[in-house]
Amino acid sequence: MAESRKRKYDEAALRTLTRDDLEALEIGAGILGTGGGGNPYQGKLLALEALKAGYEMKILATDAIEADALCMSIGGIGAPVVGVERIREGREGLRCLTAMEELIRTPVDAIVCEEIGGANSMSPLVTAALGGLPILDCDGMGRAFPEMQMTTFSIYGHSSTPSVMCDLHGNAVIFSHAVSEVWHERMARACVVAQGGGAMLATAPMQAHFVHQFAIPRSYTKAIALGEAVIRARRQQEDPIAAVCDLEGGRRIFNGKITDLKRHLRGGFAVGDLELAGFDGWTGETASVAIQNEFLIFRRNGVVEVTVPDLIVLLDVDTGYPITTEMLRYGQRVAVIAIPCHDLLRSAAALEVVGPSAFGYPDIAFSPLPKAA
Amino acid sequence: MAESRKRKYDEAALRTLTRDDLEALEIGAGILGTGGGGNPYQGKLLALEALKAGYEMKILATDAIEADALCMSIGGIGAPVVGVERIREGREGLRCLTAMEELIRTPVDAIVCEEIGGANSMSPLVTAALGGLPILDCDGMGRAFPEMQMTTFSIYGHSSTPSVMCDLHGNAVIFSHAVSEVWHERMARACVVAQGGGAMLATAPMQAHFVHQFAIPRSYTKAIALGEAVIRARRQQEDPIAAVCDLEGGRRIFNGKITDLKRHLRGGFAVGDLELAGFDGWTGETASVAIQNEFLIFRRNGVVEVTVPDLIVLLDVDTGYPITTEMLRYGQRVAVIAIPCHDLLRSAAALEVVGPSAFGYPDIAFSPLPKAA
Repeated sequence: MAESRKRKYDEAALRTLTRDDLEALEIGAGILGTGGGGNPYQGKLLALEALKAGYEMKILATDAIEADALCMSIGGIGAPVVGVERIREGREGLRCLTAMEELIRTPVDAIVCEEIGGANSMSPLVTAALGGLPILDCDGMGRAFPEMQMTTFSIYGHSSTPSVMCDLHGNAVIFSHAVSEVWHERMARACVVAQGGGAMLATAPMQAHFVHQFAIPRSYTKAIALGEAVIRARRQQEDPIAAVCDLEGGRRIFNGKITDLKRHLRGGFAVGDLELAGFDGWTGETASVAIQNEFLIFRRNGVVEVTVPDLIVLLDVDTGYPITTEMLRYGQRVAVIAIPCHDLLRSAAALEVVGPSAFGYPDIAFSPLPKAA
Repeated sequence: MAESRKRKYDEAALRTLTRDDLEALEIGAGILGTGGGGNPYQGKLLALEALKAGYEMKILATDAIEADALCMSIGGIGAPVVGVERIREGREGLRCLTAMEELIRTPVDAIVCEEIGGANSMSPLVTAALGGLPILDCDGMGRAFPEMQMTTFSIYGHSSTPSVMCDLHGNAVIFSHAVSEVWHERMARACVVAQGGGAMLATAPMQAHFVHQFAIPRSYTKAIALGEAVIRARRQQEDPIAAVCDLEGGRRIFNGKITDLKRHLRGGFAVGDLELAGFDGWTGETASVAIQNEFLIFRRNGVVEVTVPDLIVLLDVDTGYPITTEMLRYGQRVAVIAIPCHDLLRSAAALEVVGPSAFGYPDIAFSPLPKAA
């Protein structure tokens, strides 16, 4: 369909990503992944391969494209643990794009990232590069969440079907109609488990004005800046954790050593709990973090202090590198930081879908972290 | 799409089904179900409802339609046990038909039954009636089998994707491409479990000449005749079991009482074993039947005697009514009859897919029942 495309944006507004940007993005997306979303490392390798092959990755602000441009959101679906062990073939996303354009008989103008946190930061870049499309500087979560209906797109009324799911074997499935966003998630999840645990899924395209209004803005710029801050702080022997907090209005809430760790797979999700014993300024205190792919609930001395959708991030206390749930180990020394989520995730409509009760904690109210003035 | 259809058959060749035909079909399809395929009773109720509402069900020989006519095979997918407890909404098949015509942008000319054995004998009739199409007098199995790739269509080279699956909630899924027929089955099965265990699935349409060559012929005529034979024998106080054997070239191989019964659900399938103690001419003998939705292996005194794909049928010893796996009870008195399957199921290609080894019995060879001259 490439030949029938009309460019709906100004070339001058594009930012072309470099190898260094991808290295920084790996770290930043890991931080925003709040423990989940899968490790971006393999996705980065595929993206670097694409750069080497001459493809370009260009990001574009959401207001720099015509309001009626068609924007297709895409992401990987499956358990992060599977992503660690099984390498994507690399063209699943492009097959999704081609199949979607055939299905709706209209060319897509831009790619949108479903989830900036974790591995899903990288896969849309590869799809956009191979498809010759820009990728909007935004995403549907501003972090990582375990399920598809947890995007701001779904929360604010976009119906994600018809969607297209392609796996590395070459199977292609179209969810042409789902009774609800949750039904869509349920069917796709079952199907991806049958496919071996990992596939790419592209949802029904949105118009750019909707994306501009309801996407979490500047996700790529922010994630890259976060990664750069960590790299710079380490190079200058400054505190990388302070650098992350400064950039994102977060604060360090605990330094602790992992004293207990429970983690298992349930219905394709990594579920568990970890216990921390404080050190430095937190000696004598304990803390715990509840996990469902992401870090959901932070308790200090048994009392809930930070909850989803605000971001609970674990960083290696020395390097500032983010720690994902599958990398957690007994004895690890971690810094816990808390970052306020975007306001689009704090509305009543959003909290119904991504607040503590949506994750099985009906008795825990979301009490928003204060934002810096 | 109804207005763009050109009729590709002679009206005079149609046989319009009556209420009595449906009553006979219920019994005949139950017999050909060889214990599986689901109970046709609820499907019959939906079919009778459709008749009452003025819809017509018309069957047509496979050679009475133009060779290039487009024929869409359809059937229910899901565990038979779910079918017993959950009533179809009734229009799932019609939604499949409409979605398929939209997808391939071509009107369908006739409906084909995927599986004459059990519940799937009835659902295509309802789809055909609501869609104003004839249904061909044939099917893809000549009996019941538990999985989609086990049709003669798949066995003899038809690729069943793109397919359309619709459930009673209103969800619609298109399997646009599957790497193989088994992958298709695997993805659809996972999805139907997520949908609650039951849905209708229409496979990629075939041309009539292919159906004529590779479908099991005269399935509806045969099933109805079988049911009529049972009803007639009972009315005339003759032996219904002998009547069934006469019609289908079968023979009674055991009369027994169920002395042991193991049955459980595994991956959406009813799996188990039953033990029989002989009576009448079989006093002192024992027999067993292995079950995977259908009756697969008949052993006499521990020795294999009849195997899938030949038909092993359990009938109530007094009434001649077929007994499905979910109706089996300790102490039941049953007659076991063996019916040779159609030659299309006996080729090397077919036995790879529907022979004993395909069901996990690699050491049991298929030794075909002799056919009457």
